[in-house]
Amino acid sequence: MAHINYTETIEQLKRLNSNLFGKDFLITWQKSDDDLKQILYVAELLRYLRDNNISTRCFDSGLAISNFRDNSTRTRFSFASACNLLGLEVQDLDESTSQIAHGETVRETANMISFLTEIIGIRDDMFLGAGHTYMLEVGEALNDGFANGVLPQRPGIVNLQCDIDHPTQSMADLLHLKTTFGSLENLRGKKIAMTWAYSPSYGKPLSVPQGIIGLMTRFGMDVSLAYPEGYGLIPDVVETAAKNAAQSGGKFNVSNSMEEAFENADIVYPKSWAPYHVMQRRTDLLRNKNVEGLKILEKECLAQNANYKNWECDAAKMKLTKSGNALYMHCLPADISGVSCAQGEVSNEVFEKYRIPTYVEAGYKPYIIASMILNNKFKNASEIIEKLHSQKNKRVV
Amino acid sequence: MAHINYTETIEQLKRLNSNLFGKDFLITWQKSDDDLKQILYVAELLRYLRDNNISTRCFDSGLAISNFRDNSTRTRFSFASACNLLGLEVQDLDESTSQIAHGETVRETANMISFLTEIIGIRDDMFLGAGHTYMLEVGEALNDGFANGVLPQRPGIVNLQCDIDHPTQSMADLLHLKTTFGSLENLRGKKIAMTWAYSPSYGKPLSVPQGIIGLMTRFGMDVSLAYPEGYGLIPDVVETAAKNAAQSGGKFNVSNSMEEAFENADIVYPKSWAPYHVMQRRTDLLRNKNVEGLKILEKECLAQNANYKNWECDAAKMKLTKSGNALYMHCLPADISGVSCAQGEVSNEVFEKYRIPTYVEAGYKPYIIASMILNNKFKNASEIIEKLHSQKNKRVV
Amino acid sequence: MAHINYTETIEQLKRLNSNLFGKDFLITWQKSDDDLKQILYVAELLRYLRDNNISTRCFDSGLAISNFRDNSTRTRFSFASACNLLGLEVQDLDESTSQIAHGETVRETANMISFLTEIIGIRDDMFLGAGHTYMLEVGEALNDGFANGVLPQRPGIVNLQCDIDHPTQSMADLLHLKTTFGSLENLRGKKIAMTWAYSPSYGKPLSVPQGIIGLMTRFGMDVSLAYPEGYGLIPDVVETAAKNAAQSGGKFNVSNSMEEAFENADIVYPKSWAPYHVMQRRTDLLRNKNVEGLKILEKECLAQNANYKNWECDAAKMKLTKSGNALYMHCLPADISGVSCAQGEVSNEVFEKYRIPTYVEAGYKPYIIASMILNNKFKNASEIIEKLHSQKNKRVV
Repeated sequence: MAHINYTETIEQLKRLNSNLFGKDFLITWQKSDDDLKQILYVAELLRYLRDNNISTRCFDSGLAISNFRDNSTRTRFSFASACNLLGLEVQDLDESTSQIAHGETVRETANMISFLTEIIGIRDDMFLGAGHTYMLEVGEALNDGFANGVLPQRPGIVNLQCDIDHPTQSMADLLHLKTTFGSLENLRGKKIAMTWAYSPSYGKPLSVPQGIIGLMTRFGMDVSLAYPEGYGLIPDVVETAAKNAAQSGGKFNVSNSMEEAFENADIVYPKSWAPYHVMQRRTDLLRNKNVEGLKILEKECLAQNANYKNWECDAAKMKLTKSGNALYMHCLPADISGVSCAQGEVSNEVFEKYRIPTYVEAGYKPYIIASMILNNKFKNASEIIEKLHSQKNKRVV
Repeated sequence: MAHINYTETIEQLKRLNSNLFGKDFLITWQKSDDDLKQILYVAELLRYLRDNNISTRCFDSGLAISNFRDNSTRTRFSFASACNLLGLEVQDLDESTSQIAHGETVRETANMISFLTEIIGIRDDMFLGAGHTYMLEVGEALNDGFANGVLPQRPGIVNLQCDIDHPTQSMADLLHLKTTFGSLENLRGKKIAMTWAYSPSYGKPLSVPQGIIGLMTRFGMDVSLAYPEGYGLIPDVVETAAKNAAQSGGKFNVSNSMEEAFENADIVYPKSWAPYHVMQRRTDLLRNKNVEGLKILEKECLAQNANYKNWECDAAKMKLTKSGNALYMHCLPADISGVSCAQGEVSNEVFEKYRIPTYVEAGYKPYIIASMILNNKFKNASEIIEKLHSQKNKRVV
Repeated sequence: MAHINYTETIEQLKRLNSNLFGKDFLITWQKSDDDLKQILYVAELLRYLRDNNISTRCFDSGLAISNFRDNSTRTRFSFASACNLLGLEVQDLDESTSQIAHGETVRETANMISFLTEIIGIRDDMFLGAGHTYMLEVGEALNDGFANGVLPQRPGIVNLQCDIDHPTQSMADLLHLKTTFGSLENLRGKKIAMTWAYSPSYGKPLSVPQGIIGLMTRFGMDVSLAYPEGYGLIPDVVETAAKNAAQSGGKFNVSNSMEEAFENADIVYPKSWAPYHVMQRRTDLLRNKNVEGLKILEKECLAQNANYKNWECDAAKMKLTKSGNALYMHCLPADISGVSCAQGEVSNEVFEKYRIPTYVEAGYKPYIIASMILNNKFKNASEIIEKLHSQKNKRVV
């Protein structure tokens, strides 16, 4: 159930000065604070309407295209749920080859699939330097098609995870925090530890930790990033996080100690990722289809990872947090020691204690995505929400 | 066209004391007689509404998840049709690997795909002892998620075929019989021969014959199960069938003679399956990925099958039935001698005579599934049907 | 934006004497002139309604089946868009094997997927002599099922490309021409050059050039077909084109010179295809799964193609056309020299000049398909359009 006051949230929404209409949602730090708040409020209002059996269908027809260049279950279903909630029908775009299409192919395909399309969700997180670039390229193609009368509407783009950011995840995480702590204002001064954690796999994208440090530094939080030496993120993003913290009156700290990050933390987000420089090497190898090189790199990295098996979120480390009781977060699935692997990111004991909260955390994603779509397609979201609210069409008969 | 009287059927429906709301539909013998009747009546009413161009849309949004762990065309389309008929959008869950997921993966995935989901249809019939168990596990995960506030609704589960039962098939078959013979009451005393038949393939699931003997013994029918020595079904299910027959005033007989079963039968259902003990060995081999063992088992079984090529439903055997004119049934596709194989379950002559009735039989399945969904999601099905009926929204403009 | 006058187009529509209701749309030359005009007008009206934010939903439920026996992106999305525009939900039929199913399998599957299905879109263009035949077979199966009470409605079939014709493409092309030149009447006497063009691939279907010569000869156009010696089309279709031209007061000319065809042309359509006799050999080899033979044939054909690299639509050849300014058309994707291949069907310079018009050309396809569906399912299209128009349900809230 949504825990919001409808009238109050609508009023807050009306006071915002956002600029989301017709703009792709690719990276949170390219959006204003009001933009982000607008996404949160509309997400909450959509959830409120659904929870009260009020239809949120804004479209009588229209396609939503799901373009996953990497595997996904939860984000795929979140996107499908969001589109369906608004009345759009999802069609999957399966690119037969995994090679990165460029130039005329991207430009043409983007238009060919978009004649009656309202939104395109893209996941492209495999290649460093490629995912975000691809989304920009698709966006340019759509601008071109719309400007030239090819497309009767300009489909919006929602980034469902790229090499840089994972905004539907980080915004769902933020809404989880807002709900858990009562308000955005209450997050001010709260310490969140975004830390690397050991996993017996390699090549996990950087977009989640980057998304978290890039977003949570916006709201006066005390963001503590920690990873073993050599496991750094994209330097630009780290800089952005530092700048955000300075502007919002928060803190941003980087260390090589999980314990230091956990110390007195209100929230912990321990999650594995591959080091930035490894992702760069991996991208080159993937581009050159160097299978042998990839095997060698994987072996090397797993050996390197194995040096940090103690980077596990266990009961002892949780004791270091505020009252030993920090909120544990994860984008799921987590590598749970003794459950999904011999040793992983989190001990079974800790995970089991926070299992339900991590599910609840994930449950915000469909509404966040629906909000991103609605705000991209409608200039005045509060007007749409109020129309839906007053229409009172039932979602279920 | 539906052959029912609307008012009469609604009245019959109202007199039932069923308990389907919020309950997964996994196995017919776990349902009461009233439950089963309710499924049939609502299926007939939904068909009546559609035949009269009245919209049966109960949902304005909502997902229906189709989880097929085995190939399927007809059940997949039946499920999609049923969901669409009620206003739900189908999303396929493709499990990338064919391995049997367990534990946290099942629990988590079940929740992650269900935030805005109303129903989950599952086919899992490959592994003896696994399919039904998996559905129970998914159900538990959904209970857990709903109880803990993760899910705003508890998605229902419809068994689209497991290792034990195939209720959407057997219930569609029952509705076919009800329509053909005029009423459930008229089925009392009618003899149905559920027999093994020869096929040049092996490993066919047991769920259809088990579903038939488990269901048809409920309505006072004279159920005659026949198979070559060594081709037995799961003992528990056979016991259940015997008990059902005793309770309903019907008969249940097991023999090793196709002719004996056909003798004076009103209905015949000749269909191949793999022996229970073979399915057990096959399950072990599949679990252990013993490819060599599977090949040996297949060879052995096909050789064994070949001893029973005379278990073919041909004109001579049909002559043994009541007035030589029994209703031939099959879940399709049948192995038709000289058509889909050199020698199979049924002669071309017999199949061709009953081809259309077998198609009609299959045509009940979408309505049966839609009824299972509607009854799972709404406490008072007759009220919903009456609302749809009085609204008179057109299905086609 | 649609450029039509609503009232005028509705009036024109009402004056037509078409016969599309309940008829599959497989080949344009089996349709009357009024049939074709009706498809165009209804397509324009549907576009007009959508452009004016008026819902064109005719179905509250119902499936549309997408059966692609060959890869496709643009036609697949066009079909999905069209179905969604009318309120139908697309379900993909994936035939697990690429073998050509025949007989009982086709008959049965066609019925099994059709209980609640309104339309079936089929692409089957791989095998010469097979695609169209397959569609007829499916149609027969549906007739049989409908006549025998298996199906409550007879799903229509739309040919999404077969071995003979590609009517959704050619009709979209015709609508593009009608819009570009102002009216069908204005096309009279206009010269269109349908020419082969060089491509570094082989085995491209004949259906596009065949579709173009079979359709454009209907409206008094001067159709000039040109290809290198040995690259002929199916003789029957060429004969049909000649007959059409004679009847419509147009011209039909065949030559072996791209320059001759381009000379003074108003429209050029340069596109690669495999010679008819090669497609015949290829079909035999595919049927016999003769992998070695296919490799030899491919090598042979590519070598043969390489003799005609000068069949490229470049600036020099465009200068030969009417005022050097003919409309360039292509079904996309084109093989663009220096872009998608070293040397191909069209120079980058020419393609870039006409890129946007080719996109616009493709943009008619969803409406053409929607029109084919609507005309198949409703006897009186103008009545339906007027009902939708007067209802004024909004497509977007």
